[in-house]
Amino acid sequence: VSEPRIPILTLTTDFGTADHYVAQMKGAILEVTRQINIVDITHEIPAHDIVSAAFTIRAAAAAFPIRSVHVVVVDPGVGTTRRPIVVAALEHYFIGPDNGIFSLIYESDPSYRIYHITAGHYIKEGASPTFHGRDVFAPAAAHLSKGIGVENFGDPVDDPVKVELPRPKVSQDGRVHATVIHVDRFGNVITNVTKGSLEALLKKTGKTGLRGAGGAAAAVGLRLTYEQGEAGTPFFLFNSANHLEVAARQGRASEMLGLKPGDTVEMELT
Amino acid sequence: VSEPRIPILTLTTDFGTADHYVAQMKGAILEVTRQINIVDITHEIPAHDIVSAAFTIRAAAAAFPIRSVHVVVVDPGVGTTRRPIVVAALEHYFIGPDNGIFSLIYESDPSYRIYHITAGHYIKEGASPTFHGRDVFAPAAAHLSKGIGVENFGDPVDDPVKVELPRPKVSQDGRVHATVIHVDRFGNVITNVTKGSLEALLKKTGKTGLRGAGGAAAAVGLRLTYEQGEAGTPFFLFNSANHLEVAARQGRASEMLGLKPGDTVEMELT
Amino acid sequence: VSEPRIPILTLTTDFGTADHYVAQMKGAILEVTRQINIVDITHEIPAHDIVSAAFTIRAAAAAFPIRSVHVVVVDPGVGTTRRPIVVAALEHYFIGPDNGIFSLIYESDPSYRIYHITAGHYIKEGASPTFHGRDVFAPAAAHLSKGIGVENFGDPVDDPVKVELPRPKVSQDGRVHATVIHVDRFGNVITNVTKGSLEALLKKTGKTGLRGAGGAAAAVGLRLTYEQGEAGTPFFLFNSANHLEVAARQGRASEMLGLKPGDTVEMELT
Repeated sequence: VSEPRIPILTLTTDFGTADHYVAQMKGAILEVTRQINIVDITHEIPAHDIVSAAFTIRAAAAAFPIRSVHVVVVDPGVGTTRRPIVVAALEHYFIGPDNGIFSLIYESDPSYRIYHITAGHYIKEGASPTFHGRDVFAPAAAHLSKGIGVENFGDPVDDPVKVELPRPKVSQDGRVHATVIHVDRFGNVITNVTKGSLEALLKKTGKTGLRGAGGAAAAVGLRLTYEQGEAGTPFFLFNSANHLEVAARQGRASEMLGLKPGDTVEMELT
Repeated sequence: VSEPRIPILTLTTDFGTADHYVAQMKGAILEVTRQINIVDITHEIPAHDIVSAAFTIRAAAAAFPIRSVHVVVVDPGVGTTRRPIVVAALEHYFIGPDNGIFSLIYESDPSYRIYHITAGHYIKEGASPTFHGRDVFAPAAAHLSKGIGVENFGDPVDDPVKVELPRPKVSQDGRVHATVIHVDRFGNVITNVTKGSLEALLKKTGKTGLRGAGGAAAAVGLRLTYEQGEAGTPFFLFNSANHLEVAARQGRASEMLGLKPGDTVEMELT
Repeated sequence: VSEPRIPILTLTTDFGTADHYVAQMKGAILEVTRQINIVDITHEIPAHDIVSAAFTIRAAAAAFPIRSVHVVVVDPGVGTTRRPIVVAALEHYFIGPDNGIFSLIYESDPSYRIYHITAGHYIKEGASPTFHGRDVFAPAAAHLSKGIGVENFGDPVDDPVKVELPRPKVSQDGRVHATVIHVDRFGNVITNVTKGSLEALLKKTGKTGLRGAGGAAAAVGLRLTYEQGEAGTPFFLFNSANHLEVAARQGRASEMLGLKPGDTVEMELT
C-alpha cells in the first residue's frame, strides 16, 4: 500500500521567530491547503542579506525530496516593482522575490525555468504592499504544492536578477583567498570553496592538500571528521553540504581565528 | 474532490524555545488527536506580558482560516483561582487563562461567548498546578479542534477579566500621543494606532496626513511601502496588520529614535 | 470512527535554529515518510552537553504518547567509532549516538533494549562523516516510525555508554547538596532532586520540609504554585516534571541567588 504523497513546503526568511510574521505566512498557506508538510529552514537569515539567503537555500534544498516547494523571503524591495517569481530547477520549486536570492540555484541547474507571478487567483486579493511573504508568496506556494503547473502563474522571465556572489580567488603566489559565508552555532567557519572547485584546483596545480596562510595560518590541513582534529587547533574539513569550513575540536574556530561572515580566509595548497 | 479539513491549532506563549515546555504542550495535543496542523505563532512574548500577548493574538489570528483554535499561555497566575476559559469570537476559538490576554478579541467582536473550562474529561486528570499550558489548555484545545462545542467545556462566563490597554491620546494642542507596543526584528516600531482610528481622527479634524513631533520629530510623513522611505530617515507606515509603525529604510527606526515598547511616540496631524 | 494514528517523531539537538541543520534532518525524514507528526523538543541544548540532553529527553518524552520516536543528536563524537543506537524503553523509542545521552532513560526503565544501527537500507548510502543526524539518525527514525521492529536495525547492545550524572548528596550535617541542571526562561533554577528522592529522604530522616542553606539561604520553604510564593523572595517548588526548582514570583531566582547550571544548591531539611 503506498501512502499519500503529502506535499512539502519549506520556509526561509529573515523574519526571526519573535514576531508573528512567519505564523501569518503559515496561516495563508493553510487557507489554501491543509494537506501539507511545512518545514522551517531558518528565519535567522541576517536582515536583508540576499547573499546569505542564496547560499542557505542551495545547501538546504539538497536535503529535501524532489518536487518540494521552497519559499524564500528576504525582500528589502517589497512593494516596489521587483517581480515575484516561481522557479523550476533541480527538480524542485522555488518561490520568492526576483532580487538574486536564487542566483546559486540558477548556477546549479542552467536549465531553470522562471515565471513572473501575476495570476490573481493564486495570490491574495488586495495584497499588503509591505508583506508579500504572507499575501503573495505563501498562497502561490500553497497552490503550487497542490499541483498547479508553474506556467500558470504568469509570463516566463528570461532576465532574472543575479547577484554577484563572492568567488574564491587564486593570487599570483598560488594562495587561495576564500570568503566566509557563514559561522554556525559551533563556531565552524563555512567558506565559499566547494569540494568540486578545490578538487579542480588541486588537479590543475598538481598539489594534494592545503593549510591555512596569512591570518588563518594557525589552521592545519584537511581532516575527514571533527574528531580527527587535534583539540584546540583549527583545521579544514568539507562539511555535509560539501563546503570547505574551518573547524576546531573543543573550541570555536571562529573565535580562534577572529573570523566572521565576509572575512577572507587565506590558504596555501600543499 | 474536496480534501479533508485537518483542524488548525496555534500556540502563543512566553515560554521561549530553549526549554521543553512548548514541546510538552504538543505532546499533550497529540495524545488527543494526530490529525492536526499545529502552528507556533511565537513563544517570545516577554515573560508575563499580558498586553503584548493581547496585541499579538489579535494581529496574528487574522491571518488564519476561520474555526482555527488559538491557545495563548501567558499565565503569571497559573495555579491560582484565575479561570481557564475558551472564547468563541471572530469565527475563531481562543483558549487560555482569564487574565486579560483576550481583551482585544472581545473588543473586536462584541458578540464573543466565553466558557469556564471545568469539564474533567477534556483536561488532564491530576493537572500540575504549575503547568496548565500542558495539562489544561493543550488537551482542551485538542478536543475543541475535534469539534466538541464550546458550551460543553463548562459554564458561561459573563465577567471576563479585561486589561487596561494603552490607547492613543490627543492632547489639547492637537498632537497624537501613541504608545509603542512592539519593536520587530527589523527595528520597526509598532504603535497602538490602528488605521481605522487614525482615519477617524483625520476626518474629524479635517487634516490629511501626519508627521513626527517631540522626541519623534525626526520622523517624516506617511509612506505606503518601505521602499518609498528615504534611506536613513524614519517615516510612518501602516503595517500588514493595519497598525501605524515608524520604520526606516537601510536602518533601524527603533535605534534612530531611541524607542522601545511602552514608550510614547508623539505625532502632529498635517 | 477511529482516526489514523499518524506516528510522532521528536527532535532534540544542540544545533540551534539559525543554521539549516535541523531542516536537513526533516528533509531526510520526509524522504522516507510524509505521514508523520514531527515535533521539535529543543535545539538549544548547550553545544556538546550530553548531561543536559540526558535530563531534557527524560523530562520531555514523558509528555508524549507511547510509541513516539525520539531522536536526540548531541554528538561530539560524530564520525568516530561511537555506535549509532536505537533504544526501546518506557514504551517509547529513542535514537541517537551511544555516548550517554540516554543514561536517564536506562535508569528509568531497566528493561530497556538497545540495538546498534547498522542495517544499510535504513540509513543513507554514503553517509556524511560529519552529519549523522541527517544521514543516519533521521532516516532510521523515520523507518522506525513506520513500524520497522527495533531488532531489524542491527545487533543488540549490552554495554551502552552511561555518563556519570550529578546526584544529590547529603553531607554529615544533614544538608542536601543539589546540582543545578538547567535555568529556564523565567529564571527558575531546576535541580537534580526529584520528588521521589526528596520524599524518600524526608521519610528516612523524619523531617517534613526544607529551606535553602549556604549560598541559597535566601530561599524559603516548599510551595505548591508560583503564586504561593512571596513576591521577590526565592522559594522551592516541584515543577511539572517533578524536579525540585528554586523559583521567585516577580523576579528571577537564578539572578537573586546567582545560580547557573552546574552550581550547587544547599538545602536544610526541616
